[in-house]
Amino acid sequence: MPIKTDQLNNRLTTINQFSKNEVGQNRLVYSPNWVKGQKQLISWGNQAEMTITVDTYGTVYLDVIGSQSPDIIIATGSHMDTVAHGGPYDGLYGVIGGLQAILNLVRTFDQPKKTLRLISFSEEEGSRFPATFSGSKHYARIQNVTGIKDQSGIAFDTARQKAVSKLKEAADEMGLPNIPSTFTELHIEQGPRLIESHCQIGLVTSIVGQRRFTVTVNGIANHAGTTPMTDRLDALQIAIVLISHLKAIAAEISPQLTFTVGECHVWPNTSNVIPGKVIFSIDTRHVSDTTLNLFENRLRDEAQKASNSPVSITVNRWVADHPTQLDNGMLTRNKQLANNLGISYQTLASGAGHDSEIMSKVTKTTMIFVPSIDGISHAPQENTSDTDLHTGVKLLQESLREQAY
Amino acid sequence: MPIKTDQLNNRLTTINQFSKNEVGQNRLVYSPNWVKGQKQLISWGNQAEMTITVDTYGTVYLDVIGSQSPDIIIATGSHMDTVAHGGPYDGLYGVIGGLQAILNLVRTFDQPKKTLRLISFSEEEGSRFPATFSGSKHYARIQNVTGIKDQSGIAFDTARQKAVSKLKEAADEMGLPNIPSTFTELHIEQGPRLIESHCQIGLVTSIVGQRRFTVTVNGIANHAGTTPMTDRLDALQIAIVLISHLKAIAAEISPQLTFTVGECHVWPNTSNVIPGKVIFSIDTRHVSDTTLNLFENRLRDEAQKASNSPVSITVNRWVADHPTQLDNGMLTRNKQLANNLGISYQTLASGAGHDSEIMSKVTKTTMIFVPSIDGISHAPQENTSDTDLHTGVKLLQESLREQAY
Repeated sequence: MPIKTDQLNNRLTTINQFSKNEVGQNRLVYSPNWVKGQKQLISWGNQAEMTITVDTYGTVYLDVIGSQSPDIIIATGSHMDTVAHGGPYDGLYGVIGGLQAILNLVRTFDQPKKTLRLISFSEEEGSRFPATFSGSKHYARIQNVTGIKDQSGIAFDTARQKAVSKLKEAADEMGLPNIPSTFTELHIEQGPRLIESHCQIGLVTSIVGQRRFTVTVNGIANHAGTTPMTDRLDALQIAIVLISHLKAIAAEISPQLTFTVGECHVWPNTSNVIPGKVIFSIDTRHVSDTTLNLFENRLRDEAQKASNSPVSITVNRWVADHPTQLDNGMLTRNKQLANNLGISYQTLASGAGHDSEIMSKVTKTTMIFVPSIDGISHAPQENTSDTDLHTGVKLLQESLREQAY
Repeated sequence: MPIKTDQLNNRLTTINQFSKNEVGQNRLVYSPNWVKGQKQLISWGNQAEMTITVDTYGTVYLDVIGSQSPDIIIATGSHMDTVAHGGPYDGLYGVIGGLQAILNLVRTFDQPKKTLRLISFSEEEGSRFPATFSGSKHYARIQNVTGIKDQSGIAFDTARQKAVSKLKEAADEMGLPNIPSTFTELHIEQGPRLIESHCQIGLVTSIVGQRRFTVTVNGIANHAGTTPMTDRLDALQIAIVLISHLKAIAAEISPQLTFTVGECHVWPNTSNVIPGKVIFSIDTRHVSDTTLNLFENRLRDEAQKASNSPVSITVNRWVADHPTQLDNGMLTRNKQLANNLGISYQTLASGAGHDSEIMSKVTKTTMIFVPSIDGISHAPQENTSDTDLHTGVKLLQESLREQAY
């Protein structure tokens, strides 16, 4: 099963070059570059004589109909959209790599017994509109988007209808295809674990749950020169003690529990005034809801303990996503296939959300990760070696072959 | 020596009411309210037949010429300007209280042997133009202001000339009077020490020196979900460890060393991104330069220790004001006078800068503090009880009497 390596790279390059005069990739959902990307994909599907469906959200489905069980669908894919100033592989690698795997199989073995489907989801990142996974949620019949606008005030539905109308011409039909029997998503890791362990492949066990909190510390602002150290109710110093303590608690609960204070605002934020108020964020993720509960309880306890009138500390949780377990049978099968192919791998949990999180609610789902150089993602520097890109496609191809032929 | 208490309050109220439809006091230097304040003071000086001089910076000098040694000048006073949204006593209390003390003395004992001078400095706060103490620095022949503008682009000289021209009509003469033999400044404490110790008066030993630093921590921004805790170069967590450590070091060096991180900026300041860069301020004050040196050396050591490529920490010092020792003889004399009058007092260092810092460079200088309720200053809530306001004037009056009669 030779992989035409030039095609994988050429196709990635073709779509990434739509943003060539910009900083990084900017295929925000329904943008001109996004329309160009999906149209290009449809054009390749047409060339390969695949059956092309586009749904009303702009997700593109390229099918090779099975000869014996056409209604049993073995699907792969990822999302076409990127974050603003994103990299060349997040989402697109799973789309182009999936197409490549299917075309290699058809070229080598002709028509499959079951239907092979490549899915290019419209949107996953939530970077233009305040909604994430809108493509896979629509396909999985889980949730539709209503009444939201982007930062320039354009309604989701207006942008969607305008962009999707441009895809209609090229598609064979409009509609929402059936749910597949399995879904495999090929993706870059977006973290440093595979690079550091010199593994070619990551086989994903689960996608972490995450909780995000906003913590508000109210102290009392005062003069930095005339207020003795013992008389201060310095909101920043109180926040610092609390953050240090919570970081240690998170580490004690589990080394795999991530704890990030990404945002911090200080009032009045003047060098010669003791801070009267601090608001900071906590982002915490783990594969187990029990662990996330443990942390949240400790957070609330510690905040209450540190609240002594007139100092007050409030905790507001605004994200609570449950962990997602991916399919264990598919994982086990992929381990065997990797062993057969002589590919080094490790199992790992995904720290980022993916379309697979949504697909796993309606079908057997698994993910294959390839290494991210320096662990960088969501940035123009996002990179993966050619060899690793091809190894990912090779394993996916073998999995699809085993399932569909 | 009865004090006509109604006059003290009435005069403070008269000038504070120029801002009556505003939030707090807004007598920024050379503003319409500031002009009204200095003109009102000149008018009271005229009523009391004092000799009135205005200098080219708009500082007002009200003299009661001495009968025996008119060239020996015993001065008191403070500044007419306030911060934006300031309180009713910072600066103005020393001006009106000083006037009250002199007028009480003249009413009771007639003409003094030496000249008594009330000084209302044009500017101390640095709240309109990027220059502080411009009034006392000009009078003390230490520094003149050149080439600065306020935030709306008005040049210091333009604002100065326009405002001072409105004072000229009322003044007896324009000019820069001689340096006095002594200067006593009556002021609110702006901190909580006197209120907490139930002392009526604070006798100021010195004005703290202060150093201000900007510390920049460069780490590496990364994905909050996919970057393991052990792989992070989180600039905020590095800053937090450094700040906690420096706060402990400051306390260890001296409990009187104030340590304030008033300003903190985080990049990119997004809940799901590990901070790549943090800039924070340090404001540190103490009566001894040796102590400030000790702290600065430790700060630089600790920053260097925590800088491990690719993490870098830089320290930039942008304020280095030396501590100011006030006159010990005048302090001792004021202690005796307070004892004689049955006034409770404590000696303390001033944590804020004052015109006395400048005056002490050219003449014997002392300060008398009265308690600030809740230690609040530079805010509309700034307050001192009537009794304490009058006690401050009583002690100042006794000191001026002893020196000038």
